[in-house]
Amino acid sequence: MIEAAVMGFGTVGGGVVKVLEENAGIIRRSVREGIHVKYILDLREFPESPYRGRIVHDVDTILNDPSISIVCETMGGQGAAYKFTKAFLEKGISVCTSNKELVAAKGPELMETAKAHHCSYLFEASVGGGIPLLRTIITGLPQEDITSVTGILNGTTNYILTKMEKEGTGFDEALKGAQENGYAERDPSADVEGYDTARKIAIISSIVGGGTAAFEDVHCEGITKITPADLHCANALGCRVKLLAVMKKQESGKYSIITAPFLVPAGNALYNIDDVFNGILIHGTMVDDVLLGGRGAGREPTASAVVSDVIDAAKNKGETVPCPWDGSKKLDVADYRTAKYRFFVRVPEEERAAAAGAFGDITEVSEAEEKEFSFVTPELNETEFAGKAAGLTILSRIRML
Amino acid sequence: MIEAAVMGFGTVGGGVVKVLEENAGIIRRSVREGIHVKYILDLREFPESPYRGRIVHDVDTILNDPSISIVCETMGGQGAAYKFTKAFLEKGISVCTSNKELVAAKGPELMETAKAHHCSYLFEASVGGGIPLLRTIITGLPQEDITSVTGILNGTTNYILTKMEKEGTGFDEALKGAQENGYAERDPSADVEGYDTARKIAIISSIVGGGTAAFEDVHCEGITKITPADLHCANALGCRVKLLAVMKKQESGKYSIITAPFLVPAGNALYNIDDVFNGILIHGTMVDDVLLGGRGAGREPTASAVVSDVIDAAKNKGETVPCPWDGSKKLDVADYRTAKYRFFVRVPEEERAAAAGAFGDITEVSEAEEKEFSFVTPELNETEFAGKAAGLTILSRIRML
Repeated sequence: MIEAAVMGFGTVGGGVVKVLEENAGIIRRSVREGIHVKYILDLREFPESPYRGRIVHDVDTILNDPSISIVCETMGGQGAAYKFTKAFLEKGISVCTSNKELVAAKGPELMETAKAHHCSYLFEASVGGGIPLLRTIITGLPQEDITSVTGILNGTTNYILTKMEKEGTGFDEALKGAQENGYAERDPSADVEGYDTARKIAIISSIVGGGTAAFEDVHCEGITKITPADLHCANALGCRVKLLAVMKKQESGKYSIITAPFLVPAGNALYNIDDVFNGILIHGTMVDDVLLGGRGAGREPTASAVVSDVIDAAKNKGETVPCPWDGSKKLDVADYRTAKYRFFVRVPEEERAAAAGAFGDITEVSEAEEKEFSFVTPELNETEFAGKAAGLTILSRIRML
Repeated sequence: MIEAAVMGFGTVGGGVVKVLEENAGIIRRSVREGIHVKYILDLREFPESPYRGRIVHDVDTILNDPSISIVCETMGGQGAAYKFTKAFLEKGISVCTSNKELVAAKGPELMETAKAHHCSYLFEASVGGGIPLLRTIITGLPQEDITSVTGILNGTTNYILTKMEKEGTGFDEALKGAQENGYAERDPSADVEGYDTARKIAIISSIVGGGTAAFEDVHCEGITKITPADLHCANALGCRVKLLAVMKKQESGKYSIITAPFLVPAGNALYNIDDVFNGILIHGTMVDDVLLGGRGAGREPTASAVVSDVIDAAKNKGETVPCPWDGSKKLDVADYRTAKYRFFVRVPEEERAAAAGAFGDITEVSEAEEKEFSFVTPELNETEFAGKAAGLTILSRIRML
């Protein structure tokens, strides 16, 4: 029997215990000896839980039990989670986590620690919830030169944008609805400002590119300024507005990484990824686009991903599961302003001539808002856009995929 | 250096050499020593090819070279391909193939042979072309109780159905167009009768269920009888007609496996999988639905999948890559007539009363064809349907997802 512990008996931690217990038979097909949850670390008591006998309050109980070989970190944050993770890895105990904040901030260091102690730091659940995203890139596409990754990686913002579009509501009202339905946190900034998505694409880029892309390497724009007028014009263009994470390998070999709202055209596979669902397109030079979709959040899906890591750690006991992300290297990240996109732009009607003159070969949006002029620019980089937009009253500008 | 050989220098075989050569640098990230194509077995000469120096005509040249540790079988068929594969595996040389016909027919035997000789028989490319489908199920979802798999697994038929729908043409005309564009073979029966799809879902079911599902275990209906009237009525119901492979785990633990045209409703992720693309929904009890999509055929995508297997074989030299499909077991397959579906049905207008009486709680299709009555039945199994349909003139009946 492989003995494991779960740190944090909240939503995801509870799900991890559930998956390990309910699917024990299935898991034995991969790990013959089976995986047993010996301890659950939490500050609270759970007198009603069938697992109350396994609750411990002191991490040392787990650290000092030599039978433990895998720990799931489902606590969140960068404080105790970091300290405990580091301590376990230094003892040669693998840690599987759903804590994307910690992975994005300390992933390289923790992976190096794991390597030095012949164990693994695994984080499938930190990106795309239940979708086996990282493992598909690592084990399914190691033969591919992956030149771009484009994804809807945050369910909360996708839910808000879908709601705004379907019900014609503004951002604030849609956010309130999402909060009431439990799809958004009371402090929604990590989601709506794009930080959560930025952390996830930083992790994916590090895996794809083989070196660390930090959160700070990702240019980040949120959805707070998106208006019903933007969605209306997008629809008129046969597009929908989605908060995307986009990683592009440039010809120079550098990677441009941004998180921002985009106009996604109807033919694109991400166009139909609605509500809380996540979707991701991985482009390899040989395989073309591979689409992955599913539930990017939620108790059981996220827990399922953590358990896929537990199985991997169990199968590779005593060694480090190979990962292309080399924590000792920095990814060569391009200035985001060098990446070219077409932009959807809204200006006041009286600036029609000035805008047309400045941007040149534009495509007008036929169904513009009243007293406005809307158009799509040719491909421009950020600096070029800023130059041409100088002097215009830009009501909104959104990149196009 | 890992020395490899490619058997069959046709479309896929040529692609395999291309991927291994062009992505050699990428591949070294997973297999440090690199992978080198030493021989290409083909009966033809290729005087213009840069690889002409590696062409051999006698399989014994490869069999007798002790440096070879991996062979790609991209010949197709069950004759020489089987004989050669068996011979290599018996020498402890791993074989990676795109030959779904051979996998569906002899997979269990060849996997057992591989196991006995500490090598691997791998076949990612046999299903879903470039989509890393089997590896995602095996390495990404080993923690999941997968209760259904629903997929569009044949690009040719999906292209034909998309064309019929968009252009209003009949099956014969759309098939002719597909043949002219190189999307369908001169003898299209393997595609249009559903045999190709059936082989693929047999392979997937064997992986998911852990025992062999044979081609003969799959109930198989093709698309040759689908008419523009069916597509028109499907659209009126908010659906599209797709040739699906459906594996369902029943409560009894038995698996029902069929390949047949289905009405797919607009909310389903497979609704938007068009043209030659493939898509598959994997349902696990914890993760819910995971969607995978991409190019299900074509030179580079299929070759890419073969090379993903080559990498896996190289990383596991001297041992057998674990696979949940136990070739010594038979999958417990249910009689397809026990699975329940709703059916879309067309009968002549004069049988309206009789049909309504026989099927009970039906939903009428408002935009039926002239002089016809179309409806959707409640959930019925095959035997129940046959009983109720006795005496009626069934113009068509298509299952609904």
